[in-house]
Amino acid sequence: MSKLEFLFNPEAIAVIGASRSPHKIGYAVLDNIIKSGFKGSIYPVNPGEGEIAGFKTYGSVKNIDTAVDLAVISVPARHVVQVAEECGQAGIKGLIVITAGFKEIGKEGLKQEQELISICSRYNMRMLGPNCVGLMDTHTPLNASFAEGIPNKGNISFISQSGAMLVSILDWSFEMGMGFSRFISTGNKANLSEIDLIESCADDPKTNVILCYVEDINDGERFIEVCSEASKKKPIIILKSGTSSAGAQAASSHTGALAGSNRAYDAAFRQSGVLRAKSMNDLFDMARAFATQPLPDQSRVAIVTNAGGPAIVATDAVEKNGLKMARFTKTTIDHLRDNLPKEANIYNPVDIIGDARDDRYRFALETILKDENVDSALVLLCPAAVTEPEETARTIVRLNKKYRQKPLMAVYMGGKALAEGRNYLTANSVPTFTFPEPSIQSLRGMIDYGKYLKKPELTKSESLNNIDQNKVRQTLDKVFADRRVVLLGHEASDVMSAYGISVSKTYLATSEEEAVEIGKELGFPVALKISSPRIAHKTDVGGVAIGLQNEKEVVRTYHKIMDSVRYYLPDAPIYGIEVQDMVGEGVEVIVGMSRDVQFGPLVVFGLGGIYVNLLEDVSFRLASALTVREEVEKMITETKAYQMLKGYRGEKPADIKALVDTIMRTAKLVSDFKEITEMDINPVRVHTKGSTALDVKITIEEVTRKD
Amino acid sequence: MSKLEFLFNPEAIAVIGASRSPHKIGYAVLDNIIKSGFKGSIYPVNPGEGEIAGFKTYGSVKNIDTAVDLAVISVPARHVVQVAEECGQAGIKGLIVITAGFKEIGKEGLKQEQELISICSRYNMRMLGPNCVGLMDTHTPLNASFAEGIPNKGNISFISQSGAMLVSILDWSFEMGMGFSRFISTGNKANLSEIDLIESCADDPKTNVILCYVEDINDGERFIEVCSEASKKKPIIILKSGTSSAGAQAASSHTGALAGSNRAYDAAFRQSGVLRAKSMNDLFDMARAFATQPLPDQSRVAIVTNAGGPAIVATDAVEKNGLKMARFTKTTIDHLRDNLPKEANIYNPVDIIGDARDDRYRFALETILKDENVDSALVLLCPAAVTEPEETARTIVRLNKKYRQKPLMAVYMGGKALAEGRNYLTANSVPTFTFPEPSIQSLRGMIDYGKYLKKPELTKSESLNNIDQNKVRQTLDKVFADRRVVLLGHEASDVMSAYGISVSKTYLATSEEEAVEIGKELGFPVALKISSPRIAHKTDVGGVAIGLQNEKEVVRTYHKIMDSVRYYLPDAPIYGIEVQDMVGEGVEVIVGMSRDVQFGPLVVFGLGGIYVNLLEDVSFRLASALTVREEVEKMITETKAYQMLKGYRGEKPADIKALVDTIMRTAKLVSDFKEITEMDINPVRVHTKGSTALDVKITIEEVTRKD
Repeated sequence: MSKLEFLFNPEAIAVIGASRSPHKIGYAVLDNIIKSGFKGSIYPVNPGEGEIAGFKTYGSVKNIDTAVDLAVISVPARHVVQVAEECGQAGIKGLIVITAGFKEIGKEGLKQEQELISICSRYNMRMLGPNCVGLMDTHTPLNASFAEGIPNKGNISFISQSGAMLVSILDWSFEMGMGFSRFISTGNKANLSEIDLIESCADDPKTNVILCYVEDINDGERFIEVCSEASKKKPIIILKSGTSSAGAQAASSHTGALAGSNRAYDAAFRQSGVLRAKSMNDLFDMARAFATQPLPDQSRVAIVTNAGGPAIVATDAVEKNGLKMARFTKTTIDHLRDNLPKEANIYNPVDIIGDARDDRYRFALETILKDENVDSALVLLCPAAVTEPEETARTIVRLNKKYRQKPLMAVYMGGKALAEGRNYLTANSVPTFTFPEPSIQSLRGMIDYGKYLKKPELTKSESLNNIDQNKVRQTLDKVFADRRVVLLGHEASDVMSAYGISVSKTYLATSEEEAVEIGKELGFPVALKISSPRIAHKTDVGGVAIGLQNEKEVVRTYHKIMDSVRYYLPDAPIYGIEVQDMVGEGVEVIVGMSRDVQFGPLVVFGLGGIYVNLLEDVSFRLASALTVREEVEKMITETKAYQMLKGYRGEKPADIKALVDTIMRTAKLVSDFKEITEMDINPVRVHTKGSTALDVKITIEEVTRKD
Repeated sequence: MSKLEFLFNPEAIAVIGASRSPHKIGYAVLDNIIKSGFKGSIYPVNPGEGEIAGFKTYGSVKNIDTAVDLAVISVPARHVVQVAEECGQAGIKGLIVITAGFKEIGKEGLKQEQELISICSRYNMRMLGPNCVGLMDTHTPLNASFAEGIPNKGNISFISQSGAMLVSILDWSFEMGMGFSRFISTGNKANLSEIDLIESCADDPKTNVILCYVEDINDGERFIEVCSEASKKKPIIILKSGTSSAGAQAASSHTGALAGSNRAYDAAFRQSGVLRAKSMNDLFDMARAFATQPLPDQSRVAIVTNAGGPAIVATDAVEKNGLKMARFTKTTIDHLRDNLPKEANIYNPVDIIGDARDDRYRFALETILKDENVDSALVLLCPAAVTEPEETARTIVRLNKKYRQKPLMAVYMGGKALAEGRNYLTANSVPTFTFPEPSIQSLRGMIDYGKYLKKPELTKSESLNNIDQNKVRQTLDKVFADRRVVLLGHEASDVMSAYGISVSKTYLATSEEEAVEIGKELGFPVALKISSPRIAHKTDVGGVAIGLQNEKEVVRTYHKIMDSVRYYLPDAPIYGIEVQDMVGEGVEVIVGMSRDVQFGPLVVFGLGGIYVNLLEDVSFRLASALTVREEVEKMITETKAYQMLKGYRGEKPADIKALVDTIMRTAKLVSDFKEITEMDINPVRVHTKGSTALDVKITIEEVTRKD
């Protein structure tokens, strides 16, 4: 039995605020429950009325003498807290609060909403809403909402943070012939959020696909935890809206500027196996594919068509979506050649030409479905004089059932001439589209999900040695004591060393003499870098010089740097100049972190240097994913920097293993120290052996410790 | 009168191959012409029959005693040439050859097709097809095709290289309530191609938008010439399919690998003001918007909605498509605040909330349409209890007419509850969508086109001085005489100099002594580069060394390079080693050219160096567009390299003017010498003053001179 069963399949429902007046929501709710064919008991609650719609009414839930699982509340906002309290006292397990006028109206509403939350917690009740449309379960059946009608039975659950969208999709679904198992409006998510509902739908035997529209996710950690499990059971497809880039623009670090909450959502979805829909069309296109078809084994697509043009469009889409056109076996090709007219194209896409009747579709489609090199098939049909769209629809359905391990989709390009065939396909669980591109895009989603499922259980998290937390704690405490938020170069260097990250040796010089001394000690050549708490991008103000070969150059450059910095930033406090040893050649990459408010530390990897923000050759992971070596490796391969690391065009390969180690240690560091809010190691120079963090910028802020 | 008027609006039509048998195409054609309500004369031609459908038949067109403009031919392929000849003799101006069995079936068919072409040319006839569906003009009215039915009257012309797609769209258009002015199937394009038809539709007063599905374009130069003119009159939207990347993969130069015919089509479309549709949905979505709405002045969009969620989705789409959310004037905001419920959102998107009836839509929509900061508006409507979708549809239509200078679109999110309103909107020329994203994407297309139209007439082509064509001719002749296809470094260097492109001095040394001599003459430091006709990427084989400071280093490196090259490519013929002077610092970019089979020389500009193919930071133009300075500047700004050239993060700006000059001269060079098939200048180093071509690779092939 799934969690929250009392919400979706209650034995008895109280309808609090039930009304006899057809204009009231309380009327609609009661009416909908009755009309949906709900088989349990129904108790209207309304102090004013004696009987509604043939049901005895109660003045309060407390007066109902049998156990009630679920109460649907639509009383005015000012009464909701009181009513919820009574529900708690009556031992009710679930509330659906339809009433609006809570958090969404401001401070006063928020207070009321918090009261509701604490009542739920006190009585161990779970609550949907407030400010929601309600929910529907087509299999119970139950429509506990104020939206009229209940969708066709199906195996898709749709959870929506927008009630209006839910109602729109309900209306639209009839036109599309789409079926659903559950429709859930999350409203203000005061107690139950999409996370709880995804968890419940994952255990619902009637649900095969979980769709979700969300505007925000409030508990990132739990989202990942729950979805990682749920996505192993069934596909979760989410349309996330409202991701503005405004936040990212304000960031001061390289990583911060690249990150933004959109990247964090991407990383979180990916990490938990959630598919992200690109648009509303994409959401429902994918839903139809997943709801009815098996996952393809690999990405080799075969196409059967009665027209060339649309097949070329489909082939373009295959390439654009990163799928492959299947190459048939010789048996298939011979068989097609022997049986199709000589004008036909027997290679993929198989063009059975304009005068194809159903028999030719049947033959060609079955032939390619049998081919071991074909993982999925697309049937294209354009109306022509002799086309038999209904007959062919039946053929497609039959073959889809026969070759049930291979997903099959149809593109019926046309209008009324094909309507009957299209309806038959839809009614018989073959996803059918008007134009080719969306079918291929949906297939891409299925292939992505299939790959996710097939990913071998990752090796366990690695524990890293040579980690000195205390040393970092001391450094950070010193910076806090100093009331600074940015670590100086040598402090950052200490932090790196404490976490076993190889870093170029850096010492602070406060005079030219000291710089020369340090230079001699490190051995020439050395680099000089300005040290100031106010200067984030040192190169921009002439604050960096490299490759200084001797004492004389150090002295001269020391002054040159000071002059330049003074020129650009006359008021910046200067601590001195850092002297750094020069390290060997290598590929320069960035490893950085920006802390996302929902999902925590988001780690970036990519091409390094001053052009990092310009080139944006980066990949992202939440730090929590980077305890596993394979995941770090995958993160690296997603960038063009990887091509350079591998040894681009004859250059020697760089030490990727050392880089992986640096990324894992960075991820651990930012996970261990929540004080670190932003971090750039740019560049990390990856040598043919080993790697060195050359420039490390760490920004911190005091945090209220959780533990 | 538009060109090809005899095709679309003939006075008399001969139907050659007209038949009494309903299964024959000749029957369908005649039947369609009659049923379409064609008002001119109709002459069935069929030696066997006396009368068809009440019309007297003729044994041959030559027997018809009045003048005939157009003949539609559906006789068997073997008779077509003969029939066409007779048409020519009879003084017919236009042929529509529906019959298939020509070029598309191979050699024999191609021969027949060439005969048709020469007959057309002999008699000055124009021919649609062969192997086509025919054409329709809803305003004539005329259905001269074998496809049943004629679209609703409208102002969109659709030209399709795929006949099946045309028939599909015809059927689909009824379901969508879309209207068309012309439907044209181009078939094999033996005589009339989409270019001629675009030209004709551009002059057709009943056509406001030209849609086109093409698989190839055969006369790139004429396409650009015709479309550049036509697109000034009305929007041309093309879906180009079948652009495989296979060609690009085989290329040997950097530019060749980046180019590919897809880029050439992009460049050609852009140059001629043609909009490229991303998908079939995109093609028809844009068509609906263009067909009914004015072009927005700028990109500031306002949204009115009765639901928050869908408005956020629309806002995301606005950002994703590079449009702007309008910021209302204070007057607008005050007016909205004073008249909307306090729960409403009075900023953009204006949320008039779920209980909005029509009056609120009317008020809010009119208020924002009046705002001078608003260029276009989107109305979102979700079904709710009190929503008045039909009433609001009428309001939208009324306001769209009143504020006719601002484009308006509707998203009616739902199914049957909104069907009537949606139909009313469509019937009254307001583009209406189910989900928000496609509406915004269409708007984006309109804004792009508006920008194209507003582009100031570009300054005249510049003529470049210091060009020595003879010198280049001599160099190329020498290479041809040598039976080589790749110029050696010093030869390429000569070509650059002859066209006034600043190039680093390069001399060929065939011994270490000679290298030293040249080095002394140029002055140290110098660079050494292997010279071999077989080595395209010298760095890959250790064939390049830079910064050699003295004679000793030159000698040592000379041997090192030889050893390395011998190791990698023991069989490569080696001409020696080129000694080059070292030039000043600067931003390294690539300027290159790859010759496209349809559109001629395609010039690339972008970030240079060995990572050019990895980073793919490039922009493309046909050389023919690069005679105008502004266009070259625009080309540069489209890349990230431009950010570097401008002086990225404190660096000094590079000499963009010198770079523009180099690109213009390169474009002229490749236009003047058709022998040059591929060319890479990688890098061009752009200094703070001037620029230098450092490594120039030119590939040539003998061409048959045209002139």
